[in-house]
Amino acid sequence: MDTDAVFAALNVFGLFVFAVSGALTALRNDLDVLSVMMTAFITGVGGGTIRDVLLGEFPVWWIRDSGAVWICAAGAIAAIAAQPIFASRLKALIWADALGLAVFSILGTQAALAAEAPAVIAIFLGAVSATFGGLIRDVLLNEPSLFMKQDVYVTAALAGGGAYVGLLELGLSSAIAGPIAALVAFAIRAAAILFNISVPKVGRPRRSEL
Amino acid sequence: MDTDAVFAALNVFGLFVFAVSGALTALRNDLDVLSVMMTAFITGVGGGTIRDVLLGEFPVWWIRDSGAVWICAAGAIAAIAAQPIFASRLKALIWADALGLAVFSILGTQAALAAEAPAVIAIFLGAVSATFGGLIRDVLLNEPSLFMKQDVYVTAALAGGGAYVGLLELGLSSAIAGPIAALVAFAIRAAAILFNISVPKVGRPRRSEL
Amino acid sequence: MDTDAVFAALNVFGLFVFAVSGALTALRNDLDVLSVMMTAFITGVGGGTIRDVLLGEFPVWWIRDSGAVWICAAGAIAAIAAQPIFASRLKALIWADALGLAVFSILGTQAALAAEAPAVIAIFLGAVSATFGGLIRDVLLNEPSLFMKQDVYVTAALAGGGAYVGLLELGLSSAIAGPIAALVAFAIRAAAILFNISVPKVGRPRRSEL
Repeated sequence: MDTDAVFAALNVFGLFVFAVSGALTALRNDLDVLSVMMTAFITGVGGGTIRDVLLGEFPVWWIRDSGAVWICAAGAIAAIAAQPIFASRLKALIWADALGLAVFSILGTQAALAAEAPAVIAIFLGAVSATFGGLIRDVLLNEPSLFMKQDVYVTAALAGGGAYVGLLELGLSSAIAGPIAALVAFAIRAAAILFNISVPKVGRPRRSEL
Repeated sequence: MDTDAVFAALNVFGLFVFAVSGALTALRNDLDVLSVMMTAFITGVGGGTIRDVLLGEFPVWWIRDSGAVWICAAGAIAAIAAQPIFASRLKALIWADALGLAVFSILGTQAALAAEAPAVIAIFLGAVSATFGGLIRDVLLNEPSLFMKQDVYVTAALAGGGAYVGLLELGLSSAIAGPIAALVAFAIRAAAILFNISVPKVGRPRRSEL
Repeated sequence: MDTDAVFAALNVFGLFVFAVSGALTALRNDLDVLSVMMTAFITGVGGGTIRDVLLGEFPVWWIRDSGAVWICAAGAIAAIAAQPIFASRLKALIWADALGLAVFSILGTQAALAAEAPAVIAIFLGAVSATFGGLIRDVLLNEPSLFMKQDVYVTAALAGGGAYVGLLELGLSSAIAGPIAALVAFAIRAAAILFNISVPKVGRPRRSEL
């Protein structure tokens, strides 16, 4: 398989599902059409933009390529059209977010490795890239962030990046390791959503602290 | 008219009114003097900073030009002095924000066009530039963002950028198209504030979703 | 003294204490282990990252140097281990944040001066660098920001940067001026925490405004 084509396809997919999650969040908040579009766009490109900025790749990739706008617009339109189908828009957006999280954790890790980051940094950067689009979405719309509310959110993103690095170490090509690692991240996040799994906590119950 | 002079004047104006909106928000929250100044500065330069970062123009423009600090300080002092005049500081800051939104949507669109962005991207970047200063202001001070609360906010910014691109297509010089397009954006936003206009919604009422 | 060694030590110290403050905030919110680690990392590197981005120094410093991850991990582990000791994790994190604020205000000011920023801009950039790590931490976890809640927060950061510039003007070397100015910033912030000092306000009480 052609590596570039595989990663380009993952990028389109990630943009689309994050745009869907952004549009659904905006629709839940009863925003007007253009604000829904804008939220979809910012959510879609947000994670990749943070990644490019941290790596120093300028101008960020969507500035000279209007494809990103159309993919995100398609995501917004799909979200608007599919509203009546969803029993719960919140559930739908959590699943769309889970798909985006899985894909962008791999894309971010790969981009960092390509920029010669050490593996541990690349995995962290993948998780930043996977979670910041959703974070900006939630900040824009005054929603409590999934980062905070959901268990196994950061964990799934880190696991995806870790699986990707591990599979590359085992000698797999990135065109094969990428999709497999994205599935690993998604499976972990999906299990957490479906079965309400949580990772061991280390905090104490919050007392009446000052 | 000299194009550079027109755009420099728009930039000074935008900085000043956004600084006023930031200072008024800080004053409403009873912050101390230096925090008011800092909020004015961050709100004033915020939108243009995001724009420069996305376009890859470094260091961002205000790093080597202390003019921005003094303009924002002037905005903060004006806001402090004018407090007793305003019947409602919230109304005053919404109007200051509307002026800044109008001006920065044009400045952002122009900067993106100069960096060879396609028109649709340039209009989006203009809207990002126009709305992010206010967004950072609201995040800093835990206020619900205008992005979310106010109708016809993103729409006005996109209309300003769209009008600017359209007028350039019609053959107008940017020194003439810029101020006209800024007036278009401001008129739309002003009409929305005055007459409580809203753009057609596409969401359904939020049900008791999980 | 070797200037580079002094500033490198201040950087390690700042990373560590900000990581502690991030981890404690995450623990108070009952996050899982990896989310605690991630919050510690983002809080630790956040302020310096904003500084590097604004100055145009790419890739940001921690991309190719995995040291930052280990220092932040150490901060997170220290926070987890020390939880039972702290009567109040909120108090502990406010003190950790105060130490980080003091150190990063100097590091940010110095970095801006090295990039030929005018003194007033350098002091502002120091304050941005000192406060944004904590701001991102609070946004991530839906906490009200210290920027807003705490008096003499921005003021202490600006005072640190101002003291640093002043001491350099008096002819001190940066290896000596840096630690002294950081102590000045910390002393001001500590006095505010201990004695509940506040800076004169300029706002009016918020009336029932629209």
